[in-house]
Amino acid sequence: MSNKVSQKIIEAAKAVHGKILKHQKPTMTAPIRSLANVKYHGKTGYFEMLGKNKQRTLTVGTVKTFAQTLKMMALSKELIDADNMATKREAYYISKNWGKAMFEEQPESDTVMDDIEAMFGVNREQLKFIPEEKGGDVAGKLIVFDKDGKGNRLKIDCTKFGSGSYSVPNSVEELEFQSNAKFILAIETAGAFERLKKYDYWDKQNCILISMGGVPTRACRRFIRRLSDNLKIPVYAFVDGDPYGYFNIYRTLKVGSGNAAHLNQYFCVPQATFLGVTPQDIITYKLPTHPLQEVDIKRAKDALKNDPFVKHHKPWQEAINLMLNLGQRVEQQAFAKHGLDYVITEYLPAKLKNTSKFLP
Amino acid sequence: MSNKVSQKIIEAAKAVHGKILKHQKPTMTAPIRSLANVKYHGKTGYFEMLGKNKQRTLTVGTVKTFAQTLKMMALSKELIDADNMATKREAYYISKNWGKAMFEEQPESDTVMDDIEAMFGVNREQLKFIPEEKGGDVAGKLIVFDKDGKGNRLKIDCTKFGSGSYSVPNSVEELEFQSNAKFILAIETAGAFERLKKYDYWDKQNCILISMGGVPTRACRRFIRRLSDNLKIPVYAFVDGDPYGYFNIYRTLKVGSGNAAHLNQYFCVPQATFLGVTPQDIITYKLPTHPLQEVDIKRAKDALKNDPFVKHHKPWQEAINLMLNLGQRVEQQAFAKHGLDYVITEYLPAKLKNTSKFLP
Repeated sequence: MSNKVSQKIIEAAKAVHGKILKHQKPTMTAPIRSLANVKYHGKTGYFEMLGKNKQRTLTVGTVKTFAQTLKMMALSKELIDADNMATKREAYYISKNWGKAMFEEQPESDTVMDDIEAMFGVNREQLKFIPEEKGGDVAGKLIVFDKDGKGNRLKIDCTKFGSGSYSVPNSVEELEFQSNAKFILAIETAGAFERLKKYDYWDKQNCILISMGGVPTRACRRFIRRLSDNLKIPVYAFVDGDPYGYFNIYRTLKVGSGNAAHLNQYFCVPQATFLGVTPQDIITYKLPTHPLQEVDIKRAKDALKNDPFVKHHKPWQEAINLMLNLGQRVEQQAFAKHGLDYVITEYLPAKLKNTSKFLP
Repeated sequence: MSNKVSQKIIEAAKAVHGKILKHQKPTMTAPIRSLANVKYHGKTGYFEMLGKNKQRTLTVGTVKTFAQTLKMMALSKELIDADNMATKREAYYISKNWGKAMFEEQPESDTVMDDIEAMFGVNREQLKFIPEEKGGDVAGKLIVFDKDGKGNRLKIDCTKFGSGSYSVPNSVEELEFQSNAKFILAIETAGAFERLKKYDYWDKQNCILISMGGVPTRACRRFIRRLSDNLKIPVYAFVDGDPYGYFNIYRTLKVGSGNAAHLNQYFCVPQATFLGVTPQDIITYKLPTHPLQEVDIKRAKDALKNDPFVKHHKPWQEAINLMLNLGQRVEQQAFAKHGLDYVITEYLPAKLKNTSKFLP
């Protein structure tokens, strides 16, 4: 895959070079990255790009960005060929040696990176530019194959981390997986993850536990996606029962985000469904709650009105309306009221008997 | 150790019980937890408690807190006996079944927990109350011994995780270690950690890399402390060169924090010294910088004036004054300007030749 990207960079560079030799103005073409160039596709399950492109032609006005784009492409090719990588921040600092093509601030280099991503239809990780942030923690029935610095194959058994866990790297493209797990449980909070680990839930239920630690990073989403694609097993989301959990965490996991639509095909997990905690669970399980804050109510109403994902799914509209009527939010750890093992012995088993009833 | 804590709880409960049988008012005594009961001890290297105590006697006014303290002690004993644990949030939810001794908000249950901690002179983790947050990532020359849910001993080899890493659990008290590493490098950012991992720095330098991911959590600090104590090797901090890196990250790692002084003896790492990035490094290595913000300047001036740690160490005062004169801050990843491997091939080797010159 890396070689293919490397090849694409060479071709793009040759096209520019060829034009220059012919005394023509070189151009580069990339899709427009904005909500105006996006639709929600019910079937594929993520925000997709429409076909609108922007063309950048080398002129006096664009010369700096044009040069920066070419330099960034060259850096990417260097990294690919050397099997190296650079964080977005490092790429910005590297440009400090590019003379007049130097970036003043990181948002500039990020934009150029995003353009190249969209131009080649690949994700940043394939260009060997990796995010700073890490990609979640894993425990359970999963073997990850990776390699060490000398290229030796490593077998990482996620059942063997005891009270600790396997920390997902920030680039996951080249990992391989082996597992006979039945499902992946994607968990919002470290606390709930620890609880399930403590009771060896992954062993009892033959599953893979992933702690997202809040809104999942790109690496975490990509890891879950690749895992689910490769192993052909479903992903169930277990997050706090509040608008932040529903829209910022679950919806980002499932369909991606609006402002990075050219990436959603890689970074969403359309096969994810919503286990809980639902507003109905508050009633069914007599859970202790907290009142909705002003910001929660605003976010929920916004979602009903503007979020194409929510507008597409009636069950979500019903759930949100129930939440607004109750005026309550609920946390994953609220089950502790009924005993620390209640979530394992009662809640999750009851839920998993009816996965078809999960919110979409 | 757990049994000792369990024993202490029994004794405290018996004392209360005995008083009641004798128709006397039961009391509980705990050290006062505030800066007024703290001194900075240059030799031991952390904020220490002075001897001031507060006594809580059972009266009409204190009956609720008194009952909550006893219930919380009972919960702790239950957890210890069952080899279980509860997050602080779970403990709060459990109280929802304590009738009138129920906590309204989590800060109340946290306070009672802190009181019990101070009362018995143990840390919360020994009482089996664990924080929600996780404890950092590890790669390098370290074998961690843990056990699985069935009590089988697990050997976790931190050289075998490829591009991933070992994610430290949120309770580290019972881990055991084996290593012939020469030092521990505690790193602020995930980006810098990834860079050192990418080049197998731990292999080349025979060391242990720990990513703190910003201000180190209790579990992360405790892990580094236990590691350094057990292996008898030094800890070098490698963080961004700004007031946040110096005081929020490094100082917390080294001497602990002011408002949790009863814990600092467990959660500080007095053996840590400061590798970089120092203000002098900006000049020596011609690093790209950013101007100090208003908030940076305020924090630096505050530290010079009020921080007992800074007031104790002249080299830190000089470093801060140099930073203020330069008016610049610098990031760990700035070395990328000189090439991605510069930090490995030039900066760290040069620094490690003179560890005695590290800031204290």
